[in-house]
Amino acid sequence: MVPHLTTQLTGPLQELERIVLDRRPDIERWFRAQWSAHEVPFYCSVDLRNSGFKLAPVDTNLFPGGFNNLNPEFLPLCVHAAMSAIERLCHDARGVLLVPENHTRNLHYLQNVAVLKRILEGAGLTVRIGSLIPDLQGALEVTTSGGETLKLEPVERRGNRVGVAGFDPCAVLNNNDLSAGIPQLLQGIEQPVVPPLVAGWSTRRKSHHFHAYDRMAEEFAKLVGIDPWVVNPVFSQCGKVNFTQKDGEECLAANVEFVLGEVREKYAQYGITEPPFAIVKADAGTYGMGIMTVKSVDDVRNLNRRTRNKMSTIKEGQPVHEVIIQEGVYTFESVDGAVAEPVVYMMDPFVVGGFYRVHTDRGIDENLNAPGARYAPLAFETNCHTPDCTGKPGDPPNRFYTYGVVARLAMLAAAVEVEELVERASALEVRAANA
Amino acid sequence: MVPHLTTQLTGPLQELERIVLDRRPDIERWFRAQWSAHEVPFYCSVDLRNSGFKLAPVDTNLFPGGFNNLNPEFLPLCVHAAMSAIERLCHDARGVLLVPENHTRNLHYLQNVAVLKRILEGAGLTVRIGSLIPDLQGALEVTTSGGETLKLEPVERRGNRVGVAGFDPCAVLNNNDLSAGIPQLLQGIEQPVVPPLVAGWSTRRKSHHFHAYDRMAEEFAKLVGIDPWVVNPVFSQCGKVNFTQKDGEECLAANVEFVLGEVREKYAQYGITEPPFAIVKADAGTYGMGIMTVKSVDDVRNLNRRTRNKMSTIKEGQPVHEVIIQEGVYTFESVDGAVAEPVVYMMDPFVVGGFYRVHTDRGIDENLNAPGARYAPLAFETNCHTPDCTGKPGDPPNRFYTYGVVARLAMLAAAVEVEELVERASALEVRAANA
Repeated sequence: MVPHLTTQLTGPLQELERIVLDRRPDIERWFRAQWSAHEVPFYCSVDLRNSGFKLAPVDTNLFPGGFNNLNPEFLPLCVHAAMSAIERLCHDARGVLLVPENHTRNLHYLQNVAVLKRILEGAGLTVRIGSLIPDLQGALEVTTSGGETLKLEPVERRGNRVGVAGFDPCAVLNNNDLSAGIPQLLQGIEQPVVPPLVAGWSTRRKSHHFHAYDRMAEEFAKLVGIDPWVVNPVFSQCGKVNFTQKDGEECLAANVEFVLGEVREKYAQYGITEPPFAIVKADAGTYGMGIMTVKSVDDVRNLNRRTRNKMSTIKEGQPVHEVIIQEGVYTFESVDGAVAEPVVYMMDPFVVGGFYRVHTDRGIDENLNAPGARYAPLAFETNCHTPDCTGKPGDPPNRFYTYGVVARLAMLAAAVEVEELVERASALEVRAANA
Repeated sequence: MVPHLTTQLTGPLQELERIVLDRRPDIERWFRAQWSAHEVPFYCSVDLRNSGFKLAPVDTNLFPGGFNNLNPEFLPLCVHAAMSAIERLCHDARGVLLVPENHTRNLHYLQNVAVLKRILEGAGLTVRIGSLIPDLQGALEVTTSGGETLKLEPVERRGNRVGVAGFDPCAVLNNNDLSAGIPQLLQGIEQPVVPPLVAGWSTRRKSHHFHAYDRMAEEFAKLVGIDPWVVNPVFSQCGKVNFTQKDGEECLAANVEFVLGEVREKYAQYGITEPPFAIVKADAGTYGMGIMTVKSVDDVRNLNRRTRNKMSTIKEGQPVHEVIIQEGVYTFESVDGAVAEPVVYMMDPFVVGGFYRVHTDRGIDENLNAPGARYAPLAFETNCHTPDCTGKPGDPPNRFYTYGVVARLAMLAAAVEVEELVERASALEVRAANA
């Protein structure tokens, strides 16, 4: 059930796993306290990188689109988590409107929508799919990669409520990351929308997320007594970049130098001999677009036209002006010889599954979220019936528990981040009302 | 994953499944409302019988002892449910005292304790096992059927708290059904005990449970528009029976006649040609002890000495004076040719697994909870990727959903029953204080 995985360097990570396993009661208690202070996201997926000496989140997605890649045998976990989330969301819920991305030709994405729908139905909800596709006239039937038929219906606004024809849902579950902006249709409606509209990529920034993660990682590291760097990638940001016009190159160079310098120091401290690298990403980017690996300041000076074009626009044709420069974390995991990174899925406060993103043509220092990636479901190994198995860090169940802890840490940061986005939005509304 | 199962008569049950599947949103909403009105048991297992024309609970266990028989791949479901239950029980929990049955020679039962311990540890708790074995002097190490070592430690009372040496738990999870009475050690302690002490078999009665179930089944049947009999076995009770001294034979005969008469009418109504039968059971009985099958009044008159002996005492040598006479529900399920009945496990409001109790030497009208039974884990089939699979009642996923609904109905009855037991106990305390 567990894909064959190899890690070359296992020393320090095993130390982290040992600590995490030993402190499990304190960690779970800490998470319980955190979730009573912060509203847990409905769902969330986290891309992790495990370099053997470091295990860190590199991206946190509030509109996860890979439920179809989870091990189908674990869908009951999702169903339970959805039941629990729905009780929180609207106790009296019977109908939910699921709002997907607009692309109708990505059949794997449509299969993700079909699986999400099935999870919600498993939790006892009536689910209709409300599409934001512009000018959609009536229902559109599409076939997913799994051969299922989905009916996409145009979202209808009726006063302060939304629905689809003949259906007035109790809540809206958004699976559309709103890269193109917050649609008028969904603004100011009285039904709860999860995640909140401000969590979309028109207002969200990766750098904001990692600022929140800094604080969470700091607190967690203090709790279990580790160097926060072991779970936290160094990062910096540039606010005024224009790749096409070569604007902001100095800012980029200075921040790449800063990040590489910090990492160099840490590598020296831990005796790591690999060369440090950094990842430059669009601060509001998603779908693996607008990402490049840099190993020295020279890599961001004199960019060739092809790279500048690649970096200048992202999903929905949005131009890139803000970037995050993040410590690159090597992935020393591989599945069947190909480079791999774990992606962990959560719903309510629960880890409900995950998979390895595997790429045959990419290196251990590259972004794997790119065309050509494939997915190997990550099973939970739990049939651990011998007493000494509790004692071996590196065993799949223990390794996955540690993955779940770091992924939940990133989800917690996302919760704090969304809280702040919501607060900022209401402050702006108040200011606008007073103007 | 799903054991081969056959049902001979599938007509009417498919109708029930069709209804249950169609009304899933209403059913789940109803359960959510019920669980906000009644405290959900920490855990619970329900023995079901599926006769093809009827699907009904025949026993509801508040101290389930077969966690070792669940499919180990589904333990994450238990872990999530335990996390959710613990949040309800004591938010700040780090340590829990697990109190098992006293038998140390039933290695399968000890394996159940080991699995329960692992589930709670998976939820991030420190777990110690507090034994009620009389005169236990210090820790006793035992080896389970799975080859695991468990440390049983004597429960220690310190003022109004209990624990084991060097361990002050936040709550007590009882897996001991208290057939021998409520131990002094656990009375009046300030830590929460789940299930409550009054839910033990010294105060609990099957007939009381099925009275509560009557009301729940009635309400549920009204909700989905079915004859409540389809999910509810007819029953009656006798309060003053002494099998050894042949006391109470008339009461028994009259009530057997009543139950068989009711069932005969229903069978006629539904065109069922099998002969009706009833099960006579000790009203406070457990472990499959004190149970017999009767097909006519004559079967309870002139009992031979062997049967009278078998019926006269149950677990912990308790004498039987009260019996329940319950409609027998044929089981038309079989696993590999042997008679089988499903047992469904729940934790918090969630179905977390189940298994088939299989008995090669028993008939379709007999109790299967008897020496020689074996257990086939019941898998949840959920990888249902074709659209038409949602439309076929009788498919394993649909069948199991229906099992889960009826089992949860029984758990709900147990919740109401325990509520009433707790109320009665406090009323008695008040009366005693005023006396």
